[in-house]
Order: sequence, then C-alpha cells, then structure tokens
Amino acid sequence: MMTLDLDPETDLSFTRLLAVPRALVWECWTRPEHIPHFFIPAPNKVTAVDLDLRVGGRFNTVFDVDGQQMDNRGVYLEVVSQERLVFTDAYTEGWKPVPEPFMTAILLLSDAPEGGTTYTAIARHRTPETRKAHADMGFFEGWGTVATQLESYAKGLIR
Amino acid sequence: MMTLDLDPETDLSFTRLLAVPRALVWECWTRPEHIPHFFIPAPNKVTAVDLDLRVGGRFNTVFDVDGQQMDNRGVYLEVVSQERLVFTDAYTEGWKPVPEPFMTAILLLSDAPEGGTTYTAIARHRTPETRKAHADMGFFEGWGTVATQLESYAKGLIR
Repeated sequence: MMTLDLDPETDLSFTRLLAVPRALVWECWTRPEHIPHFFIPAPNKVTAVDLDLRVGGRFNTVFDVDGQQMDNRGVYLEVVSQERLVFTDAYTEGWKPVPEPFMTAILLLSDAPEGGTTYTAIARHRTPETRKAHADMGFFEGWGTVATQLESYAKGLIR
Repeated sequence: MMTLDLDPETDLSFTRLLAVPRALVWECWTRPEHIPHFFIPAPNKVTAVDLDLRVGGRFNTVFDVDGQQMDNRGVYLEVVSQERLVFTDAYTEGWKPVPEPFMTAILLLSDAPEGGTTYTAIARHRTPETRKAHADMGFFEGWGTVATQLESYAKGLIR
C-alpha cells in the first residue's frame, strides 16, 4: 500500500462498505459504458465519457447539470487494478498543467467480509480554502450519493 | 510515443544530441549516486538525493546554491525505462497537491546515430507568466549546462 498521511486541513475523505465485490466496483469505475450509471448524483447526467485508462491517460467527462453542459477534463495519475485509482483535473493529456487545479481524487478498494468492498474516496486539495469550497459544494453528500448509486448499479450487474 | 502538443505560451523545451548511449543517460537520471554529478550547474551542488523511482514516488533533492540550502520536493509522474521520465513539484509523495506548483518536466530519450542519444527536455508550466519566469531564470542556459555536464560525466562511466 502507498504511504498516505491524510491532512485534515486540505483533504476530504470517507469510507463505505459496499455489498458488491471489488472487481465489479473497479470495472464500474474504469469502463466508459458504466460511468454514466452512477458517476454524478441523479437527476444530473453524464452525457459523454472519453477515457484512456493508463498513467497520464485522459479521464474526460461531460455532465448535464440542470441543462448546462459541464466539461470535465483530467488524467489518471495511478492505475492499480482493483486496488487504487488516482486522477486529477491538474493536468490534461500529455501532462499539460492546468492553471488552477481543483482536486486530486484517490479511490482505494479492498476486500470486505461477505464478498463486499471497503470503498475509500479521498479528495486532496492544494489549499484549505479549496478544501472548504469542496466541502461547501457538498462533497460528502455528492460522493456519498455516487457510492450509493454505484452499489445499486453494480448489484444489477451480478448474475 | 505519447501525444504531446507543445504549447509555445506555456512550455519551454530543447533537444540535444549526446554522445553517450541512452541506457547510460537513463541510469544517470534515475540513480541517486549519479544525480549529484550533473543535476545542477556547477559550482552549485546537489547535497542530498532521496528518490523512489515509480509513479507517484518521491524525487527529492537538496541543492547548495551559494551556501544556501534549497529543498526541492516532487514526485515522478511517469517512468518508462530509457524512454521517458516525467516529474513535477506539483505533488509531494502520496499525491499531496502543492499550493503553487512551478513546473512539470518531461525528459524524452531516443537513439541517435553512432550510439548517441537524442535528448529532449521539456518544462511545462501552468501559465505564460510562470513560463516567462522560468525562461528569465535561465532555463536554456541552466538545463543546457546540465545536459553538457551529464554527457561529460556519462562518458567517464563508459569502460
């Protein structure tokens, strides 16, 4: 495992137990056909997904939020199958730095009892101000809803 | 090869031919015992090197510049043996974002005729202002001197 000292000044995180296996959680997070089914809280929609799942590869999505198109661009920083996915809006593809990055997200998956998954989501920020802005935007409710949607969608994939 | 569209507004780069094989150039850039021999223009010195050569691993150095200690911390973003090394001061280990990153560096190596190396160094910046500051600090002279020192040191390693 990576060394990861969370910083309460700049990080936001939570851990949930999901009643689906982590191979499936990983698949949902890393395949474009699954992303629209859970990736932002309904009734908002993911209307496009363009990803290249490798270190430095693009992780681009378009959201429809109240009829407004939101263009989200980023890259994967670390891809460790079924264990850890790290991505950020601090770069676009080709390691082009963005003037004002918002966050770096770390998703950690591990086995939980009875075939479930321990799901940890971490958002790291450059400054305490950015962390607070993210918290005020509803990090916990938003990412919590995403986890709930993910679990529900993934259950439907189990045959 | 990666897709890499250089942006004249925010990037600085140059390409040099070095009369040493790229396996050796790679070794010099990635082993702590070699770094002090070329990594900053003399008479300034590298007084400490602490690296963990993997994606997300630390690339920390200490410089002695006119008797002042300069602490440089960063991480590797991409490590493709003998081909491409990408690192930045935008993170410290564990993907902790830095409030005001300066640059992201990309080193590209390829074979040149007669056993030499085509050596491309790219510094990408968040803004045109940061690019200009880096140019004014002497990017071309500094990194050019580093390339010359590297070639000279690496030649001495050939038996």
